[in-house]
Amino acid sequence: MKASQFLISTLKEAPADAEVVSHQLMTRAGMVKKLSAGIYTYMPMGLRVIRKVEAIVREEMNRAGAIEMTMPVVQPAELWQETGRFEKMGPELLRIQDRHERNFVVQPTSEEVVTDIARQELRSYKQLPKNFYQIQTKFRDERRPRFGLMRGREFTMKDAYSFDRDQPSAKLSYQVMAQAYRRIFDRFGLRYRAVAADSGAIGGDLSEEFQVIAATGEDAIVYCPDSEYAANMEKAEALAPTQPRAPATQAMAKTPTPGKATCADVAELLGVPLATTVKSLVLATETIGADGATVARVWLLLLRGDHDMNEVKVGKLAGMEQGFRFATLAEIDAHFGCPPGYLGPVGLRQPVTIVADREVAVLHDWICGANAPDFHMTGVNWGRDLPEPDLVADLRNVVAGDPSPDGKGVLAIERGIEVGHVFYLGTKYSRAMNASFLAEDGKPQFLEMGCYGIGITRLPAAAIEQNHDARGIIWPDAIAPFTVAVCPISPDRSPAVKEAAEALYQELLAAGVDVILDDRGERPGAMFADWELIGVPHRVVIGDKALKDGQVEYQHRRDAAATRVASAEIGAFVKSRLSPAAA
Amino acid sequence: MKASQFLISTLKEAPADAEVVSHQLMTRAGMVKKLSAGIYTYMPMGLRVIRKVEAIVREEMNRAGAIEMTMPVVQPAELWQETGRFEKMGPELLRIQDRHERNFVVQPTSEEVVTDIARQELRSYKQLPKNFYQIQTKFRDERRPRFGLMRGREFTMKDAYSFDRDQPSAKLSYQVMAQAYRRIFDRFGLRYRAVAADSGAIGGDLSEEFQVIAATGEDAIVYCPDSEYAANMEKAEALAPTQPRAPATQAMAKTPTPGKATCADVAELLGVPLATTVKSLVLATETIGADGATVARVWLLLLRGDHDMNEVKVGKLAGMEQGFRFATLAEIDAHFGCPPGYLGPVGLRQPVTIVADREVAVLHDWICGANAPDFHMTGVNWGRDLPEPDLVADLRNVVAGDPSPDGKGVLAIERGIEVGHVFYLGTKYSRAMNASFLAEDGKPQFLEMGCYGIGITRLPAAAIEQNHDARGIIWPDAIAPFTVAVCPISPDRSPAVKEAAEALYQELLAAGVDVILDDRGERPGAMFADWELIGVPHRVVIGDKALKDGQVEYQHRRDAAATRVASAEIGAFVKSRLSPAAA
Repeated sequence: MKASQFLISTLKEAPADAEVVSHQLMTRAGMVKKLSAGIYTYMPMGLRVIRKVEAIVREEMNRAGAIEMTMPVVQPAELWQETGRFEKMGPELLRIQDRHERNFVVQPTSEEVVTDIARQELRSYKQLPKNFYQIQTKFRDERRPRFGLMRGREFTMKDAYSFDRDQPSAKLSYQVMAQAYRRIFDRFGLRYRAVAADSGAIGGDLSEEFQVIAATGEDAIVYCPDSEYAANMEKAEALAPTQPRAPATQAMAKTPTPGKATCADVAELLGVPLATTVKSLVLATETIGADGATVARVWLLLLRGDHDMNEVKVGKLAGMEQGFRFATLAEIDAHFGCPPGYLGPVGLRQPVTIVADREVAVLHDWICGANAPDFHMTGVNWGRDLPEPDLVADLRNVVAGDPSPDGKGVLAIERGIEVGHVFYLGTKYSRAMNASFLAEDGKPQFLEMGCYGIGITRLPAAAIEQNHDARGIIWPDAIAPFTVAVCPISPDRSPAVKEAAEALYQELLAAGVDVILDDRGERPGAMFADWELIGVPHRVVIGDKALKDGQVEYQHRRDAAATRVASAEIGAFVKSRLSPAAA
Repeated sequence: MKASQFLISTLKEAPADAEVVSHQLMTRAGMVKKLSAGIYTYMPMGLRVIRKVEAIVREEMNRAGAIEMTMPVVQPAELWQETGRFEKMGPELLRIQDRHERNFVVQPTSEEVVTDIARQELRSYKQLPKNFYQIQTKFRDERRPRFGLMRGREFTMKDAYSFDRDQPSAKLSYQVMAQAYRRIFDRFGLRYRAVAADSGAIGGDLSEEFQVIAATGEDAIVYCPDSEYAANMEKAEALAPTQPRAPATQAMAKTPTPGKATCADVAELLGVPLATTVKSLVLATETIGADGATVARVWLLLLRGDHDMNEVKVGKLAGMEQGFRFATLAEIDAHFGCPPGYLGPVGLRQPVTIVADREVAVLHDWICGANAPDFHMTGVNWGRDLPEPDLVADLRNVVAGDPSPDGKGVLAIERGIEVGHVFYLGTKYSRAMNASFLAEDGKPQFLEMGCYGIGITRLPAAAIEQNHDARGIIWPDAIAPFTVAVCPISPDRSPAVKEAAEALYQELLAAGVDVILDDRGERPGAMFADWELIGVPHRVVIGDKALKDGQVEYQHRRDAAATRVASAEIGAFVKSRLSPAAA
């Protein structure tokens, strides 16, 4: 491609609403253009990146035996009503009425449509397994779209759905996809982790997220530097402490802590470690009684002051599976006789279910609210000052330094951006939509399903969050809009420069290299700034003076300075620097 | 591809709602699956065809210097209000409200968005010309979607938009696209015509339709077998007759024609050629008078009984440019004193503007309604029985045998399916949206635009309408889902057959041929029926008996019978039969 025949549209300043670096740089580099909140045109420079991402995904999906189709963007509401998601999804689901006032949605994902296809097409066990995928426009009407392509409303997703005859086969299909995803992410040339994720009520370990590592990532990734262990924060288990509870050394005392309503404030006031304080979280669950009335049950969760509650883990407690909420002020008053900030498990007005985090269960001489404003209890000890907890469980997020659940070291935490997800669905959708096949014994069975997503348009944003500097983007070769930029200096004043640039351009083109020749006639400073902002990984500068010495300059986007290379060898030199195309 | 790893899903019967052969065959061949009226999933077999169409279009658009981008499917109403199309487009435009009750549309086309991009990006004449295109999902909420992909609601279109500094440059951009379209349609391997189309009020000849020839096409295409002339019916000019009007030989007479309200009935009753009768069409135009009231003007159009009115031509008459309607019964009564069926230009109650078609103007001794129920005037002659017409113009559709407008023979008519359109837009959109650039003289000027569409998902349907037989589809090589089907007979009973099939499959794959090996284990009859229905152009059958004689069978989908070929040479033989890939 010659730059004069392309659209290069760089900006000095990022728009005011671009909060994250990938949004700023994609806008400044002319890769996307905002049309409306969360809705972007993929400009020519950005579309080249997206197309390379798509091509890698498509190749590896095909290699893994998945079959491509394209499901409609506009889908009838009836299918979404079969699974109940037409109501359940809320305002994120963009709804439409057509001219005949029939309800439709703009697809946010395609479980319903693909299951509808499967129940028509996959009638016999002989046709299984099958995996159907598409790379298609999606829409989620986010309440607060932001971060450019990171959390847009309209986006492109690769979504795949596997159909199997039984669980063992479904788990195999899942593994095939998990392996394909590793190949895909390897080929992108990004640092990433495949982390175990929570698989909901289904159980098992058949859910993994593919997280691109980036300091700015929204997700915390837990991993063990000494082993293969990696999980997202929701999933990572905090093992039970191995040391036993130490005996009491203090007497329990009601201690004044005026205005100190947080564990941190109390620890500071009393001059004790935060880890000796216990925070009280009051939750409620609701059930429908025999008389049809709603019955609320109140729970007191106890966590160490330096730990955070993990909602997914709490949601798995027996009795919590149907969901929970924070207790109301009225419920708190009825059970504790005290407003929040000074709550604790000692001296309750009415009994509650007390669940202690594993770390809290082994504390001695601990501190908690006294159920009286401006007072905390100190020197609290299980058994002596209050009964043992009703339940001891893992309620908290792990922290760096916690032992790894696989017993092979301690955990570290880094940030990531979720770009892929593989998930074993079981029969959730096939059951809801009556998608069955005839098994070998001639009896109908529900299809076992898995679903597998990759955020095609989010991937470039994640790549930039991971790979940029003050001057702009630094693309890995595999997904760069162009791999090599050839930059002649003032070619109009030097036929030799013009000729050498054109010759190198043609040589690289002929070798299948995705090269752009900057023939715009820009001044060197502006030209270099453009390519550094756009992030083309390899650059060759051809200037009159060096060329007279038989030399040109090569610089990788990560190099601090240029390397002089004999002009006769520059083509071979550049080719030797390219990442081998993994295919 | 091996068939066992693909989804082959053929049906014996077409669905009841499939009215046209392409819809029937695409459904039966498992290429599309209906999700809702006019909304289809592109199934794996169909998607392969669509992808090949896309690839050809993309290659040729890039070659012609157009730059690909992707504009959003969901677009804000504000832009559509700028051009007035949000209101004007009516219920075909699918409207949405998002969660904040802001108005959006699902794009039916993208003039507004691309013009919005151009007014931000193209600020100087130095950046021109530019041509931006996308291959993207569109939606038109057709009142009566039908014919499968031929007139769907959701579809894929390639839409391109050129931006130029002045008319000469815009016309050059138009010609570049018109040439690219010829290359694209040549590569599809279909019989087509590029026909001149009406370019609306803009004038000039800068509008062409690309019509795939098919007996079932909705459009009439006019062409001259002895020259390059081709136009659509709206555009094709009926030349003025060269012979002068003959003198009158009959006296005018009021002749009873009871119950004969059509020209055909009158001609039959009187035993005269239909071409001697004249039909009267009464139209009205409206203007706003000085007092603000609407003033209607009534027109009488006269055409020969054997000719049809051409609305586009009528709409170009001076005074008709703002639109016209058929006159009301009250207006007809006021001017003619007679109900429709017996109207004519002789003996009017109030004067009307009389426009005679060129053929009517040279008639003598003609027949028309007498403005009295159940009576016609015969022997009517211009000048003698009524004044010469106010205007003589080309009002009619041409018919086969009319002289070609280029003077090089006579016209023929065939049917076509419009799949592409190139159109010079001028400044219609840039003016409405204030999209200007700084010209060389430093002054702002509106961008000159052109737009260029190809119906990507309609093309396969048009290809089938042109190429099918009783057994199914016959794809041209370039867009076939697979180019070659290798069909081993009972490979499980003959290792030699299995091996030969696998070897041929691998040989063709290695040569870059898009081959499918049918390893499903189907019986020969079912297997052959599938590939004939699906329309794979080249088939090789490998059977045990022939193979023992060192032979296999080759058959092109259009061949009446198979050809025996030495099994050692079959690879080379097949390759020699493939259409050279035009690239």
